Amino acid sequence: MSFVTYLRCLGCGKEYPPDQVMNLCPEDSLPVQMCFDLEALRKKESSDIAYRPELKSMWRFGRLMALDPGDAGDASNIFSLGEGFTPLYQWSDNNLAKKHGFELWLKDEGRPAPGFGANPTGSFKDRGMAMVVSMARKFGLEKLAVPTQGNAGDSLAEYAAQAGLSAAIAMPVKTPMPIMGKVSAYSQLYPGISIDVVAGTIREAGQLIKEKYLPQGYFSVATFEEPGWRIDGKKTLGLELAEPAIPFNDGAWQMPDVIVYPTGGGTGILGMWKAFNELQTLGLTDGPMPRIIAVQSDATAPLVQAFEAGLSDSDAVEAGQTIAYGINVPGGVGHFEVLRILRECQGTAVAVPEAEIGAALGRVFKKTGWWICPEGAACVVAISRLVDEQHIHPGDRVVIINTGSWEKYLPDIRHLL
Amino acid sequence: MSFVTYLRCLGCGKEYPPDQVMNLCPEDSLPVQMCFDLEALRKKESSDIAYRPELKSMWRFGRLMALDPGDAGDASNIFSLGEGFTPLYQWSDNNLAKKHGFELWLKDEGRPAPGFGANPTGSFKDRGMAMVVSMARKFGLEKLAVPTQGNAGDSLAEYAAQAGLSAAIAMPVKTPMPIMGKVSAYSQLYPGISIDVVAGTIREAGQLIKEKYLPQGYFSVATFEEPGWRIDGKKTLGLELAEPAIPFNDGAWQMPDVIVYPTGGGTGILGMWKAFNELQTLGLTDGPMPRIIAVQSDATAPLVQAFEAGLSDSDAVEAGQTIAYGINVPGGVGHFEVLRILRECQGTAVAVPEAEIGAALGRVFKKTGWWICPEGAACVVAISRLVDEQHIHPGDRVVIINTGSWEKYLPDIRHLL
Repeated sequence: MSFVTYLRCLGCGKEYPPDQVMNLCPEDSLPVQMCFDLEALRKKESSDIAYRPELKSMWRFGRLMALDPGDAGDASNIFSLGEGFTPLYQWSDNNLAKKHGFELWLKDEGRPAPGFGANPTGSFKDRGMAMVVSMARKFGLEKLAVPTQGNAGDSLAEYAAQAGLSAAIAMPVKTPMPIMGKVSAYSQLYPGISIDVVAGTIREAGQLIKEKYLPQGYFSVATFEEPGWRIDGKKTLGLELAEPAIPFNDGAWQMPDVIVYPTGGGTGILGMWKAFNELQTLGLTDGPMPRIIAVQSDATAPLVQAFEAGLSDSDAVEAGQTIAYGINVPGGVGHFEVLRILRECQGTAVAVPEAEIGAALGRVFKKTGWWICPEGAACVVAISRLVDEQHIHPGDRVVIINTGSWEKYLPDIRHLL
Repeated sequence: MSFVTYLRCLGCGKEYPPDQVMNLCPEDSLPVQMCFDLEALRKKESSDIAYRPELKSMWRFGRLMALDPGDAGDASNIFSLGEGFTPLYQWSDNNLAKKHGFELWLKDEGRPAPGFGANPTGSFKDRGMAMVVSMARKFGLEKLAVPTQGNAGDSLAEYAAQAGLSAAIAMPVKTPMPIMGKVSAYSQLYPGISIDVVAGTIREAGQLIKEKYLPQGYFSVATFEEPGWRIDGKKTLGLELAEPAIPFNDGAWQMPDVIVYPTGGGTGILGMWKAFNELQTLGLTDGPMPRIIAVQSDATAPLVQAFEAGLSDSDAVEAGQTIAYGINVPGGVGHFEVLRILRECQGTAVAVPEAEIGAALGRVFKKTGWWICPEGAACVVAISRLVDEQHIHPGDRVVIINTGSWEKYLPDIRHLL
C-alpha cells in the first residue's frame, strides 16, 4: 500500500484526499504536493522503507514512492521504462575543486551508462513523467496534456505512447529539432499522440492546451498543475544523492553538502527538498541539509532577480535568448516555493553569463567525455563564482545536476563539440 | 548558358532533348543522365570551365554545372544552401597507411568545418537535392516526391521547405529518429511538406509515392528516376576530389588513386565517374582513372554478390539488418552501371562484416574526432582487406567518402561514442 495520506497546497496548506485527481489548489491557484505518513512508515514492522538497491531504476526507493513497488496493486500500475538510478561521476581533475579542496560530482541524467538505469528520453523529465503515467493508470486517466519547453513533451510522448495513453503536447516553434522532431514523429507513429507547435513561449503553449485540449477531457500535467506527481518523481533525484549505494556514501544514507541545479520551473528543487526532508523525518539522515544553488542564464533570470531583491515570488519577465533552452522559463507557479527553499537551506540563486555556457559545454565534453547539456553547462560556469562568494567551502561535496544530454540540442551546439 | 546538350539513357543510349522533364527512359525503364557539350566547352573563348574556387559550395565548378552560376538566367534558378565543398582530412596516423605506405584521406560530407561549405542536412544527399530543387525551379515543377532510406528525404524536405516548393516524402518506419523526426516536424512547420511512414523498406515507400502522390501531379525525384539531376549534383563530389584547391593537388587538377565509397543505389559512383570522365575529355586531367571501391555491409550486399558472380546486374535481395542504414538497399535500377564502372576502372566491390562497422565508428571518433556515419565506418573496415588483396598499393592516395554525420543515427550508435 502507498503511504500517501493527503495532498497539501504549498500555498494555503489546505489538505485534500490522497486520491483526489486535481490540478492547482482551488483556494489560491497554487500547487499541491503528496504527503506521506512518515510516522506510520517509521513505525512499520520492518522499520525501513523497503529500499531495494537491486532495482536499477527510480523505483528502488520502495515505500517512499507514491506507488509502492512492493505492493501488488501499486506495482500493477507502475509503468517504468527504466528511468532513474543515473550515473554519478566525480570530476577529480577539475582545477577549481583541486585548488580549493572540495569534491565536485556530476549527476548525469542524460546519457546512460552500463550498470545504471537509463532515462529513456535522455533527460530528468523522465522521472516525473514515469510517475505521471503510472498515476494516470492508477486513476484511470487516459488523456494527458502538457505544454513544454521540449524535454517534458518528449518524455510524455514516450511514456504515453508506450503505455497506450493519449497525450497532447504543445511546444514553442523554437524547440530544438531533435525534440520537436521526435514528438512530431510519434504523432505519426502513435494515434494517441498529438503535437501542436505554437508561436511564442511555453506560456502560449499552455494557453493552447487550455483552450484546445482540456475541453476535450484531457488532464493537464503541466509543471505543478498535476497533484504533485512530477515533484514526487523528481524526488528520486534527491534520494539517489543520499542513498547508501552510491560511491560517496559508503553504505549509509547521507546527503551532499551542495547541489547546483539549473532552474526553470523548479520542480527538481521541490522534489529534492522533499526527498531530504522525508529522509530527515524518517531518521535515515541527520546533519545539515544540503545547500541548494539555483542556476539560471543571465538571459532569463526571474528567480535570481527575485532572490537578490528579497522578494517572496518571482515577477514574470520576457524570455531572453539562451542555448540553455530548458531554463528559459520567464516565470513559474512554484517559484515562491523555490525561493523559500533556497533561503531556508542557505543556498543562493546565480545568473551566469549566457556567452560562457556554450564554451563550458564544449570544454567539459573534450576534457571528460560527458554529454552535458547547456543547462548543466550553466552550472559548471557557476562553480567559480560560488567558490569566490563562499557558497562552496573546502571539504564540501558538491553535486552538479546535469539534467539531460547534449544530444537533444545538437543543432545548436554541434560546433562546440 | 548551360552546356547540357541532351539527356541519354544509360541503357539503350537513346537521346532526349536537354529540357525534357522525364523519369526513366520509356524504352527500357533505365536511368538517363545529362550530357554536356564538352567539345564546345573546350573550345570556348575563355578555354576553361569558369572554375570559381572562391565560391564555397558545389557551385564552384562553373560551366561543368547543369546550371551555370556565371549565367544570369541559370543563376536565378540555382537554389543553394551552401552545399558541397566539404572538408577533406588526411588520416596521417592511421596504422595501415603508415605501415603500407599509402595516404589515407577522408572526405567528410557530414559535419561542417570552418572555411568550407556545409551540407545543410549533414549528408551528401544535399548535393543531389540542391540540383533537383534548382532544376525544378528552372522547369517550373512545384511538387516533388521521393521515397527514401532517410537522408535523401531529410534533404529534400529542407530544400523544398526553404525554396517554397511542395515535397512528399515516404520512408520506412525503421528510419532513424533524427531523420524521421525532422521530416515529420517539417510537415508541421511547412504546409507544403508531407511525410508518409510505411511498413517495409524503401521499396514499399516507392510504391506509396507511385500510388498516392504521382497521380496528384508530383514529380518523382527518386534515385535515378529524375533526368540525371541527382547524378550531376553528386558529380561535384568527384570534382572536389580532383580540383586544384585541395591539399593534395598542389594547385593542379588531378585525381586520387582509389576512392572507397559506401554504396546503396550508387548515384555517387555514377556521379564521380561522370566527373572524372568530363575532366579527362576536357583535358584538365590525364593519367589513370581512380579505382572505385564499392563497399556494402554483408547484411545486404546485392552489388558485391553480382560483382563476384560476374553478373551484369544485381539481383534484388531481402534487406538485412545493418546500422549502415543508408546502404541497406536491396537492389537498384542503376546497379548495372555501377558494376560496369567498377569493372572498367579496375575497382572492386567489398562486403564488410556488419559486426565490425559500429566498432570502427567509435574507434575513429575517439582517435580523430571525426563524426563519421556507419556507412563511412564500413569503408574504414574495408581498408585492411583492400590492402591485403592489393586493391590499395604503396604510394596510393586513397579517399574514403564519409557520406554523412553520425548525428543522424545517434539513437542507434550513441553507445559506441
